Amino acid sequence: MYDTTLRDGTQGEGVSLSAEDKIKIALRLDEMGFHYIEGGWPGSNPKDMEFFNRIQQYTLKHAVVTAFGSTCRPGVEPARDANLNRLLEAGVKVATIFGKAWDFHVTRALNTTLEENLRMVRESVAYLKSHGLTVFFDGEHFFDGYKANAGYALEVVKAAVQGGADAVILCDTNGGSLPLEVFQAVTRVREELPDVELGIHAHNDGEMAVANSLMAVQAGATQVQGTVNGLGERCGNANLCSIIPNLTFKLGCPTIPRENLVYLTELSRYVYELANLNPAANQPYVGESAFAHKGGIHVSALMKEPGTYEHLDPALVGNTRRVLMSELAGISNLLYKYKELHLDKSSPEGRQVLDQLKNLEHCGYQFEAAEGSLELMLRKALNGYREPFQLESMRLILQMWEGQPIHSEAVIKLRVGEEVVHTAAEGNGPVNALDNALRKALETFYPEVAALRLLDYKVRVLQEKAGTEAQVRVLIETGNGKKTWGTVGVSTNIIEASWQALADSMAYGLLKEHKL
Amino acid sequence: MYDTTLRDGTQGEGVSLSAEDKIKIALRLDEMGFHYIEGGWPGSNPKDMEFFNRIQQYTLKHAVVTAFGSTCRPGVEPARDANLNRLLEAGVKVATIFGKAWDFHVTRALNTTLEENLRMVRESVAYLKSHGLTVFFDGEHFFDGYKANAGYALEVVKAAVQGGADAVILCDTNGGSLPLEVFQAVTRVREELPDVELGIHAHNDGEMAVANSLMAVQAGATQVQGTVNGLGERCGNANLCSIIPNLTFKLGCPTIPRENLVYLTELSRYVYELANLNPAANQPYVGESAFAHKGGIHVSALMKEPGTYEHLDPALVGNTRRVLMSELAGISNLLYKYKELHLDKSSPEGRQVLDQLKNLEHCGYQFEAAEGSLELMLRKALNGYREPFQLESMRLILQMWEGQPIHSEAVIKLRVGEEVVHTAAEGNGPVNALDNALRKALETFYPEVAALRLLDYKVRVLQEKAGTEAQVRVLIETGNGKKTWGTVGVSTNIIEASWQALADSMAYGLLKEHKL
Repeated sequence: MYDTTLRDGTQGEGVSLSAEDKIKIALRLDEMGFHYIEGGWPGSNPKDMEFFNRIQQYTLKHAVVTAFGSTCRPGVEPARDANLNRLLEAGVKVATIFGKAWDFHVTRALNTTLEENLRMVRESVAYLKSHGLTVFFDGEHFFDGYKANAGYALEVVKAAVQGGADAVILCDTNGGSLPLEVFQAVTRVREELPDVELGIHAHNDGEMAVANSLMAVQAGATQVQGTVNGLGERCGNANLCSIIPNLTFKLGCPTIPRENLVYLTELSRYVYELANLNPAANQPYVGESAFAHKGGIHVSALMKEPGTYEHLDPALVGNTRRVLMSELAGISNLLYKYKELHLDKSSPEGRQVLDQLKNLEHCGYQFEAAEGSLELMLRKALNGYREPFQLESMRLILQMWEGQPIHSEAVIKLRVGEEVVHTAAEGNGPVNALDNALRKALETFYPEVAALRLLDYKVRVLQEKAGTEAQVRVLIETGNGKKTWGTVGVSTNIIEASWQALADSMAYGLLKEHKL
Repeated sequence: MYDTTLRDGTQGEGVSLSAEDKIKIALRLDEMGFHYIEGGWPGSNPKDMEFFNRIQQYTLKHAVVTAFGSTCRPGVEPARDANLNRLLEAGVKVATIFGKAWDFHVTRALNTTLEENLRMVRESVAYLKSHGLTVFFDGEHFFDGYKANAGYALEVVKAAVQGGADAVILCDTNGGSLPLEVFQAVTRVREELPDVELGIHAHNDGEMAVANSLMAVQAGATQVQGTVNGLGERCGNANLCSIIPNLTFKLGCPTIPRENLVYLTELSRYVYELANLNPAANQPYVGESAFAHKGGIHVSALMKEPGTYEHLDPALVGNTRRVLMSELAGISNLLYKYKELHLDKSSPEGRQVLDQLKNLEHCGYQFEAAEGSLELMLRKALNGYREPFQLESMRLILQMWEGQPIHSEAVIKLRVGEEVVHTAAEGNGPVNALDNALRKALETFYPEVAALRLLDYKVRVLQEKAGTEAQVRVLIETGNGKKTWGTVGVSTNIIEASWQALADSMAYGLLKEHKL
């Protein structure tokens, strides 16, 4: 398992890792049991050099840090090539260098002869070997080269072996190869060079990087290069978060120690967090939705037997099963999710709530991300629920004078038990003013509202094309420091929709604090 | 090409399409040349029924609308099965029904015998056929079933054929199968049933859905089921936006008409927009980063020869090459787009507008869909523009009493030339009230405002996670019956953002009428 998140991964759009981030990720990959961590390209930028200097202060348990670079340039001896010498200065035991395996690239991009390219590959590998390094050779564009001129692509691989390469990695640099092509090409190299360790380095431009990596392994490759979450240029590199569990659980290949796979989901989210990217919810194995079930039939079968609609136990990769609520939900989803409410499938309340749910979703409500509103609805239907407050009236006044920002003021009148509270507040916008006024009104009765925080506010205009009279759906996410919950409101009036979601968000927060 | 975005796609977490959205997507898929569009599961929810009723009013050019359902239940005759009869009521010519192909599912989830399941499959297909429908049979969990008990899985397929199925679709329902397994299983079915049309329906739980679909085609399947952008439950369905170009350009298979592939990127973004999901930038073929190059070596080689680091010409799928770290390309486009304004890149006004544009985009403005606002900004900077009105003050009052809808009133004071107009209006929500008041104020001066119609109103919350103080972007689309234009506003206050976009929409409409 050869990780290149820190080098090829950072070529991805929007991916930027500080030297500190890179150190943190390297230490985490080491703990997980990765074999090789490609730290960067020494000399290409100051950040990579800082990484190689700093990582030497750590004693890694499993992983070997590698440095990336290219062969010497055309017409240059390896010993006089600045980039090759930088690899020697990086303080690593393993260097990975790439050379061109596609004749078109040699003549068009490098502007040199096919013979000279073979010399560059052979001598560059030999030079690094002569300095005591382990050397991996990345055959750039190997598969495109193989399709265009199989003989030459194989000669390049053989030149690396002649130079003493410890492994030859076949690269699908442009990411457009198909699984059967990869299988056939790797099989051929395997036959021609039975004693050489082979690797695969795939990109995802045809949405094939994971499949191509597996096919290469099935054809005899033993080293797999990829990145955490498939980060990388264009459509990304091969995603190790999918390759590792596929190899381990589906093909029974050794990868990282099996007991560490339960930290895979955590690793994925950690790297997203450091790279400041939003995790892809639908990412295989480790995504938030990867084991989330919405269809009613699926949920009812899952309750009998999880294997019915899951290809794998989510716990094996540290992920969890989730059951979503929506109009597609059967009653099984509700029962599973609200076990503690002792809802009975055949009870009139159960059916009534489900019908109400389907009707509301048809009108534009969405309860998947609004569990708070859903639970309040269930509790109201089950009669055991006392609302913590009720709205008597609300007024919002927004004023703007030329050249000045809008002034927003909210006035609200609530009943809390027997008492009436009438108060006002300003805010940065109408919803913020309402939020402030609501908290002010509730504070004296429920001091714990101070701990509730609005974390997210989303607006979706439904049935667009109706101009400003369209329906609006507001989703609010609130947290109390321990857990978070979503609430929803729908109306043609954005203020009314916001009020519904806001009132639910507070009511649900109080419910959880008070067990009302 | 069988699209199930409207049915299986909506099982995806966070995917919720209104009946109106579904109609729009179906019409777009038809224009693209898809062969089948699975509209929904009649009877499972009111939205799907509404879709089947409404779609009958349209004459489609290429596509046939299909309805999805299951076989009859155990122990029930097809003619007495409510769900099967719903398929007959949906008014479609093609029905796709699924049945279980995995023995474990038959005994554990369905709680019936293997024999009874074969009867259900055979008789359900025959029943729908006897009513004149074309019937596709989805063999649920076929690949898992084939691994567990190949004989029984094949018997299920044969039962469907005996019932008269027009095609049998092999489903990787749990999404965990590997490419070689799929290839081998489809090859076997092909051999056993050489005259039956085969299809593939794959899910992406192992990140293999696109690869598995291609392998099935290479083994003889001719129908591919999938969704736009791979939307779907858990990790999604097979992504048709990758499968179609892979089949077309890499394997030379017929899919949708080749000339329509240039609209593939547009289709992908349209569906994301209607589903209110953020497009995945690194999505193969159609993602914003799919042809974005960051590495210096890659960019310099690309300038010599695009094929060096691109597996495909992005124009073939309607996407574009991007070179990152160079915003200058966008600015050249701007100069090109507003040629008639004679904007000079090196003039002080030119520089000023470009700086303003960059700052505004950095603050969250987006002018791609707001040409109206952009042209007004350019004209203001170039001094030749006289504003048709100016705001002096604005007041919005929203009031709500318990159990009643919100009452919205707007008061505005404008200067139009030398005159001041002060007026008020009510509306269905705050923005509608503002819109009504603004029109009322302008009517006496510019009677042509009566012809301007707000067509679309969109709200995006930027910088989420800041709760109700987040920045909000409002995009408004307006038309005068001849052309349409977009305008934009950004503020922490949704009312202020709406006002900016609204004022621009009227000002731009008047500009075009008056040549002001």
